[in-house]
Amino acid sequence: MAQNIYDSEVFFRGYSELDRSVAGLEGAAEWPAMQALLPDVGGLRIVDLGCGFGWFCRWARGRGAASVLGLDLSEKMLARAREAGAREAGADPAIIYARCDLQRLALPEASFELAYSSLAWHYIADPAGPFATVYRALVPGGWFVFSTEHPIFMAPSSPGFVSDAAGRRRWPVDGYLAEGARSTTWLGAEVVKYHRTIGTTLNLLIGAGFSIGRVEEWGPSDAQIAAHPDWAEARDRPMFLLVAARKR
Amino acid sequence: MAQNIYDSEVFFRGYSELDRSVAGLEGAAEWPAMQALLPDVGGLRIVDLGCGFGWFCRWARGRGAASVLGLDLSEKMLARAREAGAREAGADPAIIYARCDLQRLALPEASFELAYSSLAWHYIADPAGPFATVYRALVPGGWFVFSTEHPIFMAPSSPGFVSDAAGRRRWPVDGYLAEGARSTTWLGAEVVKYHRTIGTTLNLLIGAGFSIGRVEEWGPSDAQIAAHPDWAEARDRPMFLLVAARKR
Repeated sequence: MAQNIYDSEVFFRGYSELDRSVAGLEGAAEWPAMQALLPDVGGLRIVDLGCGFGWFCRWARGRGAASVLGLDLSEKMLARAREAGAREAGADPAIIYARCDLQRLALPEASFELAYSSLAWHYIADPAGPFATVYRALVPGGWFVFSTEHPIFMAPSSPGFVSDAAGRRRWPVDGYLAEGARSTTWLGAEVVKYHRTIGTTLNLLIGAGFSIGRVEEWGPSDAQIAAHPDWAEARDRPMFLLVAARKR
Repeated sequence: MAQNIYDSEVFFRGYSELDRSVAGLEGAAEWPAMQALLPDVGGLRIVDLGCGFGWFCRWARGRGAASVLGLDLSEKMLARAREAGAREAGADPAIIYARCDLQRLALPEASFELAYSSLAWHYIADPAGPFATVYRALVPGGWFVFSTEHPIFMAPSSPGFVSDAAGRRRWPVDGYLAEGARSTTWLGAEVVKYHRTIGTTLNLLIGAGFSIGRVEEWGPSDAQIAAHPDWAEARDRPMFLLVAARKR
């Protein structure tokens, strides 16, 4: 079973204060790039794998999605998602929030045109089974669009920038091909994530039957850096990997 | 036009002494992994993009390939390829070696079942046009299998391992998302290579019409490390990216 760090008190409090938790999708640096990978969501049946506070579920419904199934492991996040939805727009019967461990994902077959997932897969030790489940859950022509932490960000035994003698910011990498668990401290908690190469992630998708449609190693735009100069560091080592895959 | 470093005297002499130049395919650490990506070459019409000394051309003919067109920018390498072929097996009329700048690649349409390329694309500033040419040159169902230097290896402004305070070997990365030319010293020569992310390489292939079949961020096997302990460093930062793409 995946670690349920989001239900720990101290972590949840810290996570709730992040830009992406307060401002929603617009607070997430990679959202414009994710949006560019999405099909028009109008009329689609969508499943959101790791829906968190439900920002994407509500955004998709606002853009005309037929229905959204929001799945998350964290009871706290699902409770917050339900509250936020009720407060913003009254209860929306076409958004269903439900608890789910992605490692044990079960979905009805051929029932969705889009599977969406933001920054969830790096918590999953073995996505082969869940990817196959997502493939079966999509209709032919359906899309699976997700982000995950970038392996250059995940790999190091001691992740962090260092400055070289010339004052350049550099990100020392080791163990890139040593896939598996990485334990790091984030928001005051010990968080276990699973490092996989880009190749492994793509080969698992291909093995599940998907065609790879687009692979983005995300970096900030010039306009984003002008507004948030500290985001520039992502150009030295990317933090997010975005993938769009299709069921043919 | 791509830089023709292989025809410079000092570089050619140095390159000729590498394991992969002396021992051929068996001297190349990544060859077993490349071979695993290849279809059975029996009866295939093959083009080898950046054929060097022609080791792969002769190997493929030895395995029953119908014909091999070996292309390279370097006159010195083509001359050596022709000599080696004549010495080993007499002249083989089904192997044709010809000079070609991959940046200006021209090939007949629908004429090959396999396009192969070993460690050539990182010398090419813009592979979009050549990838489209390869796509058109393949028959439906044909494969494009190639290796290139890995972007983690290519990206840094000062590539090299450093040891941290604990004595761990680490590879500092900067400028990973700053694609473009990288000038490095190799075998006593100033070599210009072009850094691209994995995402960019795959998206160019997809844009040319290819389906991605397999993506390998190559690392040595346990048996290889037992025989060559110094190869273990590739597990800390991969040196080669291997891709198999298909024309559907």
